[in-house]
This record gives sequence, structure tokens and C-alpha cells, in this order.
Amino acid sequence: MIIRRIDDFHCHLREGELLSRVLPHTYKHCGRALVMPNTRKPILTVDDVLAYRYEILKQVPKNVQFEPLMTVKLTPKTTPGMIKKLIEARVVALKLYPEGVTTNSEDGVKDFESLYPLLEQMEQHGVVLCLHGEMPGVNSMDREQRFLPVLDQIVQKFPNLKVVLEHITTASSVGWVRSLGPNVAATITLHHMVLTLDDILGGMLNPHAFCKPIAKTENDRDTLRRAAMSGDPKFFLGSDSAPHLRENKECCNGAAGIYSAPVLVPALAQLFEKLGGLDRLEKFISISGANFYGLSLNEGQLRLTKRQIPFIVPVEFDGVVPFLAGSQLDWKVEQVQPESEYAQACAQVEVQP
Amino acid sequence: MIIRRIDDFHCHLREGELLSRVLPHTYKHCGRALVMPNTRKPILTVDDVLAYRYEILKQVPKNVQFEPLMTVKLTPKTTPGMIKKLIEARVVALKLYPEGVTTNSEDGVKDFESLYPLLEQMEQHGVVLCLHGEMPGVNSMDREQRFLPVLDQIVQKFPNLKVVLEHITTASSVGWVRSLGPNVAATITLHHMVLTLDDILGGMLNPHAFCKPIAKTENDRDTLRRAAMSGDPKFFLGSDSAPHLRENKECCNGAAGIYSAPVLVPALAQLFEKLGGLDRLEKFISISGANFYGLSLNEGQLRLTKRQIPFIVPVEFDGVVPFLAGSQLDWKVEQVQPESEYAQACAQVEVQP
Repeated sequence: MIIRRIDDFHCHLREGELLSRVLPHTYKHCGRALVMPNTRKPILTVDDVLAYRYEILKQVPKNVQFEPLMTVKLTPKTTPGMIKKLIEARVVALKLYPEGVTTNSEDGVKDFESLYPLLEQMEQHGVVLCLHGEMPGVNSMDREQRFLPVLDQIVQKFPNLKVVLEHITTASSVGWVRSLGPNVAATITLHHMVLTLDDILGGMLNPHAFCKPIAKTENDRDTLRRAAMSGDPKFFLGSDSAPHLRENKECCNGAAGIYSAPVLVPALAQLFEKLGGLDRLEKFISISGANFYGLSLNEGQLRLTKRQIPFIVPVEFDGVVPFLAGSQLDWKVEQVQPESEYAQACAQVEVQP
Repeated sequence: MIIRRIDDFHCHLREGELLSRVLPHTYKHCGRALVMPNTRKPILTVDDVLAYRYEILKQVPKNVQFEPLMTVKLTPKTTPGMIKKLIEARVVALKLYPEGVTTNSEDGVKDFESLYPLLEQMEQHGVVLCLHGEMPGVNSMDREQRFLPVLDQIVQKFPNLKVVLEHITTASSVGWVRSLGPNVAATITLHHMVLTLDDILGGMLNPHAFCKPIAKTENDRDTLRRAAMSGDPKFFLGSDSAPHLRENKECCNGAAGIYSAPVLVPALAQLFEKLGGLDRLEKFISISGANFYGLSLNEGQLRLTKRQIPFIVPVEFDGVVPFLAGSQLDWKVEQVQPESEYAQACAQVEVQP
């Protein structure tokens, strides 16, 4: 099976040494990745964007078709006057984190209405609003659902603003996003199509299945699967691949995040095949997101083939435990007619032996 | 405030070296503890009971008023013919673990009806049935609730069998137990009156709040608090204090269990005081359980006083992280007129500085 190189519309590439470790797993199969701005030193200004984009791109081998799509973290200090300059710096989306809901969100937003002047500028200039859609102060199982009225309020007020509800985890969110106009979409992660709450704590406690928003019920998971496989252009891939060093997961205060980048495409192929949706895989991972963001489709191609002997996912990559560690994957993903230098670069980061 | 020495009607004392580390925290304030049989080498026979009881008692200083109430783990191999001999070995209860629901329950029960001949003997001889009331194969949030019809079925079939639904975590269980006859009771832990699901995963992942059954919603927790403080003789303390070494909690397969023994009495006093139920504390921790089990009340006494300066719970006791580690406790618990050797033994294990 041949598909276009994919787009990951939600990815944590981190900074410094960890960036160097994890970046190859993303540029290997992704033509573009929407880079999250909640780094330790958050991406807040034009200067931050330019510096971070440079830090990423200088580590991408020549001839590798990879574009980091830059974002800025929306804080009470983000002003409407910044929008034009951010666009010039190739920022495609602003990310809103309600205060305190996930990693590095202590400086997030409390008062959503205070954002209106900014959202007006974004609407006018076609900048996407990415929402971490969880309501602070609400319990984990309900906080996504309780955020949906905020989404509704924003959409009513700014009917032409492009809004992405990120990493949705509930059947409610699927229904809500479907009910809104074509300017509202949602990203779905691989792991939320695989896990439920019980993968964290139904047996022994598994910190490597712990992420924000947490995985919910079987019904929620199954509804996400159906949305992703529906071909509905409102739903597309955002992996939320979020690497944390093993010691920061297996401890008394475990970090939230699942590192899915190393297994993303083969695991998605395996899941879509199992569920009978392989013919809609490309739409979900390579087409719908680009269309929503108004980007041309990737030109590079990936060849997906079934393996004779399944590949066992390593239990660790450079100190980070990947999603599905120790599991079998039976899809192989290769570049189609790669150019020499590119092939070489990608061969170095193949997860397959 | 003076109360009787307490009874802990659900306690994991472990074996070998770990037993030695944790036992003093239980005999310090408990006149009796119902000792769980799901040790690594499970307590299944008369010989197991006698050996385990001896192992425990030889470590209890003379003059310390402490009686381990012995239990046997109910497996498909437990026969009705064993009941009389178990009673002679001072076994007061048999513990039923549905297969696979908690630590060391792989040899648990699948077919509840197969137990009927055994339950008939237990009913006849006044041996208590302790239930880990979770239905295997059901998700964590619902598995206790889904077990309740099994409880009902057993109670209908054996109307004079004494049954304890252990460590209840849901409002449903409170209601269900209330609705059944006086031969049905429930234990409630300290930690299920304090925690909700979000204490495990609402912020960072906290393996030290992870136990089975998992803590549920705020409503469930508040209903448990009300039941414990109601004075209803059907609800009494079973701490389910379950020590695991730190390295077995903070890892990729974290063990379920909360080590509450070191803080049990002061933390309960603090909670009951906060909720305005201090006058019903003694009933919950020293009276109702003994009455249900048909035991005389403890004669030793504890003096509970408010501290001027709060005590900070240590972050670790001998490699085990206690419940409420690092928190402030403002109640002090002392023996009333202790005899010399006893006072000395207890002084050695005071959590208070």
C-alpha cells in the first residue's frame, strides 16, 4: 500500500538533547508536524518561534522533506497586535491551555472571554486556534466534556475562526465537533484509539499509559476509532507524542505523556487494518489535516507492507519508553524511491531492525 | 479524648522481613487485626494458619495487647470438611477473592455457586465470609458495583451467614449493605474516605494513591464518610493497610496497595474531627467491628490529644512510603497507663517524634 507522507497535527518535539533524540522518529514518516509550544521555556514570541524553528531544522538532514509547523502558546500576555508578526514567522496556530490542566500549563488561561480581541485577529487572518479542551478544577473523567460549552461559546462568537479541539478522548467530543461547522475539527491520537482508563490502573499501575487527557471508557475509545475511520474531514491525526525520560514516568510524581512517534504509522496501519478501515487511513493521517489547515498535500510517499515476521517494539529508545513497548507490529513502513542522503538519514532511525 | 484500643478488620501484615518492619505500626494501636491471607505463600490450610500466627505473635512484645485474627484464603480447593479444624486454629473468617481482581488473586474463585456447600458449613459454624467484592473482567470504575448482585445472591441463599463486603468504595455499596440484614456488614478504609480517582491521576501520576479497589468519585468518597460517621453498626474500620516497597510502587508495573497503618488512628481522628463526627470515631474503629464478629471489646485504652505543633508524616518507613507522607497530622495518640515493657515497645515504633 502506498500513501502520502503523513502530517502529525500535534507533536511534542521537546528541546535540547531530548529534541535530538526524538526528532528523527517524527521526520522519518512525517512531512509536517505541528510543534507544541509548551516547552520548558515556552514558545511565546516571534523570537521564541524563530529560535525553536531553527533549533529543529538544523537537525533535519538535507533532502528530508520535513516542515515544523510552528505554534505559540497563548497566555494572558499574548496580544492581538502580535498576530501579523507571528504569521510572518510562519506560525500557523495558537495553542490555548486552560490553567493547570497539563504539563507546563501553570501560565495558562483562566478567563476565556478576555481572549476575544485576540481571537478576532486570528479569525481575520486565518490563524488556527488549537484547544486543550479540559476544564480546570473538574475531575479527570469529566473535564473534557465540561469544556465543550466553552468551545461552543467561542465558535458562536467567532463563526469563521478555525478551531481544533485537540486530542479528543470522549464520545461527547466526537458528537459535539460533528455538530459544529466545517471550521471546527478535532485531532485524535493513536493512543486514545487503543487505550482505556483500565490500561493505566485496571491491573498493575502502568505509568506509560498515563497521559492528559486520560484515556476514558471503552465506548469513548470505540467512538474515537469510528470517527477516525469515518473519512469525515473534521477528524485527523495529532499524535500528541510526548516523550518523558523513564525516570520521570516511573516515580512518585509521574509525568503525563505517551511517546508514540516511533511506532506511529505502523501501529495506525495495524489498528485500521484490524478494524477494517485501511482504505481510510491515508485520509486520516495524510489528507484531512492538511486540508483543514489549508496546506498542500505532502508529495513524498510511504510504502506500507505486511511483515512475514512481526517486529517487536523496543522497550526503550534513548531513555524513553515508547508506546506499545514490547508489542508486536506487523506493518513495515518505507520511503518510496528515497533519495540517497534522505534514505541514509532515515535508515539510521528505523525502528525496525 | 479516651477511646478503646482499636480493631483493624482488614490488614496486610506480609511475611518475613517486611512483616517485621510493618507489624509494630499495627500492634501499637490495634487490639486486634484481621490478617489477610493473600500472602506470597497464601494461607490456605490449618498448618498455614498456625505457622503464620506463630510468625506474627513471636514478634509481638509481651504485655502488648494484640491478637492477630486469622483468615484463610478461599480457593477452589477449600473444602467444607476443613471448617471445624480451621475454627480450632482460631480462624474467624474466610476470604473470597474473585479470580484476578487484586494482588495475588490468580488462584481466586471463578464460579461462586461452587462454594455453596462450603458457605453452608460456614453459616452453620458462624465463620465470617469476607468478600473482595469486585467482578473480574469489568472496568475499574464499575467492577465493585457489578459485584453487588453476587453479594445479594449469597445472602439470599444463606440468610444467617455473616458476610463482610470489604473495603467498599462506592455509594452503591453503602446503599446495598444498608438494605440487607444485620448479618451483612462492610469495612471502610481510611484512604477511601480521603482519596478520589483524581488523587491517582488528576495531576501527576501518584502510585502511592493506587490501590484496589481504586478510589472512585467525590460522591462515592463522601458517602463512605457519612456511612463511617453514621454510627450504623454495619460499617466499621478495615484499613486494608497494604505495604509495598517503594521500588515496587514507583516502577512500570506498580503494585496496588496503600500503607496506612503508621498514620491510621491520628489520621482518622483528624478526618472525623474535620467532618464533625469525632464522637462517633470510637464506634467505627473500636466497637462495631468487634460486635459484628462477636468478640468482646478491647480493654486497653488510647488517649487522643490535639498537638500544639502538627506532626509531619515521614516520607518513608523502612523502604515503604506511608499514606499521607509529608502531610500534617495534628492528633497525638498515646497508651493510657501503659505497663513498662509495653510502653517501651510502643515507644520504639511511635511515628511521632
